[in-house]
Amino acid sequence: MMVYGAIEAGGTKFVVAVGDEKGNIIKRETYKTTEPAETMQQVIQFFKQYESDLKAIGIGSFGPIDIRKDSKTYGYITHTPKLAWRNYNIVGALKNEFNVPMGFTTDVNAAALGEVKLGAAKGLESCIYVTIGTGIGGGAVVRGEILEGFSHPEMGHIMVKRHKHDRFTGNCPSHDDCLEGLAAGGAIEKRFGKKSALLADNEEVWNLEAHYLAQAVMNYTLTLSPERIVLGGGVMKQRQLFPLIRQKLKGLMNQYVKLPPLDEYIVPPMLEDDAGITGCVILAVQTYEKEQ
Amino acid sequence: MMVYGAIEAGGTKFVVAVGDEKGNIIKRETYKTTEPAETMQQVIQFFKQYESDLKAIGIGSFGPIDIRKDSKTYGYITHTPKLAWRNYNIVGALKNEFNVPMGFTTDVNAAALGEVKLGAAKGLESCIYVTIGTGIGGGAVVRGEILEGFSHPEMGHIMVKRHKHDRFTGNCPSHDDCLEGLAAGGAIEKRFGKKSALLADNEEVWNLEAHYLAQAVMNYTLTLSPERIVLGGGVMKQRQLFPLIRQKLKGLMNQYVKLPPLDEYIVPPMLEDDAGITGCVILAVQTYEKEQ
Repeated sequence: MMVYGAIEAGGTKFVVAVGDEKGNIIKRETYKTTEPAETMQQVIQFFKQYESDLKAIGIGSFGPIDIRKDSKTYGYITHTPKLAWRNYNIVGALKNEFNVPMGFTTDVNAAALGEVKLGAAKGLESCIYVTIGTGIGGGAVVRGEILEGFSHPEMGHIMVKRHKHDRFTGNCPSHDDCLEGLAAGGAIEKRFGKKSALLADNEEVWNLEAHYLAQAVMNYTLTLSPERIVLGGGVMKQRQLFPLIRQKLKGLMNQYVKLPPLDEYIVPPMLEDDAGITGCVILAVQTYEKEQ
Repeated sequence: MMVYGAIEAGGTKFVVAVGDEKGNIIKRETYKTTEPAETMQQVIQFFKQYESDLKAIGIGSFGPIDIRKDSKTYGYITHTPKLAWRNYNIVGALKNEFNVPMGFTTDVNAAALGEVKLGAAKGLESCIYVTIGTGIGGGAVVRGEILEGFSHPEMGHIMVKRHKHDRFTGNCPSHDDCLEGLAAGGAIEKRFGKKSALLADNEEVWNLEAHYLAQAVMNYTLTLSPERIVLGGGVMKQRQLFPLIRQKLKGLMNQYVKLPPLDEYIVPPMLEDDAGITGCVILAVQTYEKEQ
């Protein structure tokens, strides 16, 4: 039986799996992210068990990463704050061990692919997946494939209008008051002095959060016109945010663009924590098919 | 000789053309936009001359338009302020006369396609084309094809941060101080009391304009990651804007995302007024090839 390999490379854990050509996961393991030498040895050992059946590997990595095929550092995790992984050639390390086609993208692009093929956007050709956790990241699928161009999207760092009563300066180390600096879990905690999960009853928190996330969804919509937007991550576990974001988006958009019914347009993930690894299996399948 | 038809449907004029399979224009005509019955009769007469050779027609229209193939109003110009054209079935009118495949998109999506195949983004797979004129519109090409999803992009209406000294309320009828409301030619004229062409020497005007357009370029970049961004339209004829936008983008981005050299990344159109009609020819070619 032929299998497709998948690696979801995260800052705290690595998930590895093999799956079938439909994206179903057959077997998976999870390893703590330590140093590349140690973590990657576990990853390689996992796939060695399947070596004779392995058709391709799809990798969805924390970033930023270099996805430019003509770049000298293609396949590298680049200027991550995780110093042990900075400028680490993850695709190269795998290429040394496995002579199969490899797809390489961001963790959020992989999650978008997972959700569009088997999750909350199944049956559609396009979607955006945004995770609002400690930081904010977003990826997209267009015409059934991951969206990449000069590099990969970094949707968490777009500019949005400040709420007129918000005096928090923003805590993005690169852009101060970009979306992530104003609306990520880290910003909520810093502004209100508690983790977002402990603020569930505080309406001010979620109205402000929806003020920023509705603008983000508006900007993504007007730029990309996806068929659906999936909002995941720890902050979005506060499900009261969904109706607030939809309502504020409706006001902002003011009927300018026709949208799908908003409760179908802005939705939670369906695959939840499996979105990324599922997308990596599908990326492996797509990469294999392209190289045939 | 087989030819491909092209229609650039604008609010003030219609450009029609036939071209070859490379996108080169063989013959063109321009008609004033009056009422659909009158203008479309001229359009139809033009193509009747080529009827036996016509393989397909590509249409790039002022909007908003309905591009959803499964919609009852597919092929319509929808809620335009030009009342005579509101809810006009432009594709249907052409289908009644010509039994050929038809591609239908926005004028700015067509211009993006023209610039990526034969203009300022030639040789690339993706680009964004933005026109900053009386209003602001933007289109995109991804993997060599026009970007569409639930609908088409409307990039002119994204939210951006106000400049702290800008007291102009914004003049977008739908969103007040969205990008178009703050930075289109109409906003410049209303804020400073003169048309932008008469304000060429006023540094305040162009610094403020660059403040908004750099944010727009930043947001498009982080959402779509195109290989190039082409900025056209009347306001961008003020070429001093290009270095200002590049410089402000560099500051905003703060090295967070690796970009191409900025003087190659943010560029003026190469096809100028021919971008749209050229893109319509190419859209006709792509539509014909897909239907084979």
